[in-house]
Amino acid sequence: MPKPHQLHLGAFLRPTTIHTGAWRYPGALPDANFNFAHLKRFAQTLERGCFDAFFMADHLAVLNMPLEALKRSHTVTSFDPMTLLPALAVVTERLGLIATGSTTFDAPYHVARRFASLDHLSNGRAGWNIVTTSNPDAALNFGLEEHVDHADRYRRGREFFDVVTGLWDSWADDAFVRDAQNGLFFDPGKLHVLNHKGPHFSVRGPLNVARPVQGWPVIVQAGASEAGRQLAAETAEVIFAATPTLEDGRRFYADVKGRMARLGRDPDALKILPGAFVVIGDTDAEARDTRARLDALVHEQSGLAALSIALGHDASGFELDGPLPDIPPSNASKSGRERVLQLAAREGLTVRQLAQRLGGYAGLAMVGTPRGIADQMEEWLITEACDGFNVMFSHVPGGLDDFVDKVVPELQRRGLLRRAYSGPTLRDHLGLRRPPNRFFGG
Amino acid sequence: MPKPHQLHLGAFLRPTTIHTGAWRYPGALPDANFNFAHLKRFAQTLERGCFDAFFMADHLAVLNMPLEALKRSHTVTSFDPMTLLPALAVVTERLGLIATGSTTFDAPYHVARRFASLDHLSNGRAGWNIVTTSNPDAALNFGLEEHVDHADRYRRGREFFDVVTGLWDSWADDAFVRDAQNGLFFDPGKLHVLNHKGPHFSVRGPLNVARPVQGWPVIVQAGASEAGRQLAAETAEVIFAATPTLEDGRRFYADVKGRMARLGRDPDALKILPGAFVVIGDTDAEARDTRARLDALVHEQSGLAALSIALGHDASGFELDGPLPDIPPSNASKSGRERVLQLAAREGLTVRQLAQRLGGYAGLAMVGTPRGIADQMEEWLITEACDGFNVMFSHVPGGLDDFVDKVVPELQRRGLLRRAYSGPTLRDHLGLRRPPNRFFGG
Repeated sequence: MPKPHQLHLGAFLRPTTIHTGAWRYPGALPDANFNFAHLKRFAQTLERGCFDAFFMADHLAVLNMPLEALKRSHTVTSFDPMTLLPALAVVTERLGLIATGSTTFDAPYHVARRFASLDHLSNGRAGWNIVTTSNPDAALNFGLEEHVDHADRYRRGREFFDVVTGLWDSWADDAFVRDAQNGLFFDPGKLHVLNHKGPHFSVRGPLNVARPVQGWPVIVQAGASEAGRQLAAETAEVIFAATPTLEDGRRFYADVKGRMARLGRDPDALKILPGAFVVIGDTDAEARDTRARLDALVHEQSGLAALSIALGHDASGFELDGPLPDIPPSNASKSGRERVLQLAAREGLTVRQLAQRLGGYAGLAMVGTPRGIADQMEEWLITEACDGFNVMFSHVPGGLDDFVDKVVPELQRRGLLRRAYSGPTLRDHLGLRRPPNRFFGG
Repeated sequence: MPKPHQLHLGAFLRPTTIHTGAWRYPGALPDANFNFAHLKRFAQTLERGCFDAFFMADHLAVLNMPLEALKRSHTVTSFDPMTLLPALAVVTERLGLIATGSTTFDAPYHVARRFASLDHLSNGRAGWNIVTTSNPDAALNFGLEEHVDHADRYRRGREFFDVVTGLWDSWADDAFVRDAQNGLFFDPGKLHVLNHKGPHFSVRGPLNVARPVQGWPVIVQAGASEAGRQLAAETAEVIFAATPTLEDGRRFYADVKGRMARLGRDPDALKILPGAFVVIGDTDAEARDTRARLDALVHEQSGLAALSIALGHDASGFELDGPLPDIPPSNASKSGRERVLQLAAREGLTVRQLAQRLGGYAGLAMVGTPRGIADQMEEWLITEACDGFNVMFSHVPGGLDDFVDKVVPELQRRGLLRRAYSGPTLRDHLGLRRPPNRFFGG
């Protein structure tokens, strides 16, 4: 019997929506990003909708855009993800909690410890989105004059992953016997001292946190460059993909799963979830109108700033009504840059059109009725362009509520989405095995 | 009218009790340290008892003791404080939440951001315990072969403090206008870019979190060395003191408050809270018996390990029934080492006696009836040996419950402790002013 197709859904939040105009939309909550009461309600709504996870992006600096654009950004102040997610863990019971942790600007011992703590606190619902941090302004907040080179970041990231997972394996799952009678708190034979020494890190261990409930928190990645794909094929269990078309999705899916097969990894051990910006209407026309109204709320300066970030190049001097000029290569995220160049070429957009699109959301968008959106999601799933989606809501709370109240039931009717969680952990939701402990087997 | 004497009470937890034998005590919860359901109940009990704060110690390594002792330690696995406290913020309403953050092994941008996030999430209840991290094993988990020298740690710590507080002042309190009509999220005239460049740190800013609810989270310190006292007099708002006798307490209090006066700081702007290990009985004899039973649960190896840590010198080869031998100076916390040497001299203890005492708790202990304990606390308070205490419970939940159910009402009857919180923030509880923003006045 073939395995039934099942969508995995993450909610991608920063911690609200990515769309720059969304906070101005009628009925939207302008402070949603930084108001725990709202965020608590969002998380509980996602849990009602049987989402796999709340996925929180992160930046280690305010976005590097001119002040004229920055002053319009509703995400310029937001909670540190690893402060917010423990709080959300307390007000939810099943929802996975994925946060970004930088391998360039943090230390493996801190990252291992914090995600292990979150995994215990949430009874096995943590995920670590490994990023190498492409925002060059982050370097300036961490004592570096220039940003670390792309290839260096990936080499460091790979070693960082080895150290973190090694620290998570410091203790056998049954190390803590807590024998009060004999005064033995743990079995010393079940403690491993890592003693890692590599080109980037020297970390002795052991971790001062028990092995995570899930063995390891779920490993998530988003890089789409050659180095990023290879790192993901070797190590990731979820990819946040940025494939704008069904064709791109299929190609990316085949490429990464092919790399896994060549590495001897089971392709099912990694779930590919493209980001999908979803705009819901009772009719297609209403949904298109909502998107147009949202985009109209994006200021031109915000659009140009978003374009500059995506290109890694200042776009403020570009001729607005001309085509995108040739620009030199930069140290920006390669995948983001290529995506913009492809979009401009594919749709023949002017700089102004491109800026407006990017200031809203320029990637994969599903704009339509609940049934139409379910149709698109189903097509992506069954044609092997994805294993699910990281949904970006048009606005909050409206777009999120509509998704859970209208799209989720349609997906459930089709048997594409669970009606209840089958287990307690994020690994259960995603159908991922619990990794064995490299030092203690099983 | 003279200001009425008021005790400030912190609960010092790791996150349970410091006593090495306590997890084996009848009725104690052996996993309390790492079980959120228990910790939630403890925090709620402290709030019922009108405590100022939950104060969580931290270590960036497992304690550096021989495996024979380590395997008996009930704090070898514990939550990262900055993962636990956001969760506790959700299940409490008034209790202050103080965590340790290292200035030696973390980055100012991370620390500023995380404590600002906790302060917002808790509506103004965060405190940052600035430590320079004296455990030499921590260095080995962060890429250093040898520990950073004591004086260097303090110079770095002082600059770290300047950067963190400067980042907290990145935004005026009223910067975020969220004007949806005009698309203006913040007033760009109310953003300050720090551009810090110093001997240890280069940090541009601004912080990507709004100014904390309290302006700054409350600044806490614990160092008692000459450098530690001076840093505290310059910057601290709470000191966790380690003065074992009333006489020591008065001397320390006069010294630090005198330093403040010479620096032009109001001595009331800093609250000195010695740690106090409290053992409660219905009679003095019962309390003494409880302490004896607790100490009897400390294994000899644990005692010797605690002695080694306190001295910064391996004590395992010492003659158990002889006096403490001469030992060379080390890089251990100077205040801790001096305390041990004084204790041994003052009470004429053998190595074995000293080890047993340290494996339990060797500092200030109040052992008696609720009334007797209240008498001692009152004497310390009115003779200017302290502004309150960081209470260490003999065991949990019993010792904590007894304190809140028996000692707290006695203190309240005497008018020494609030019967209800007067305001929402930790600064309100402590009677501390909200710091002005150095870049925007007021």
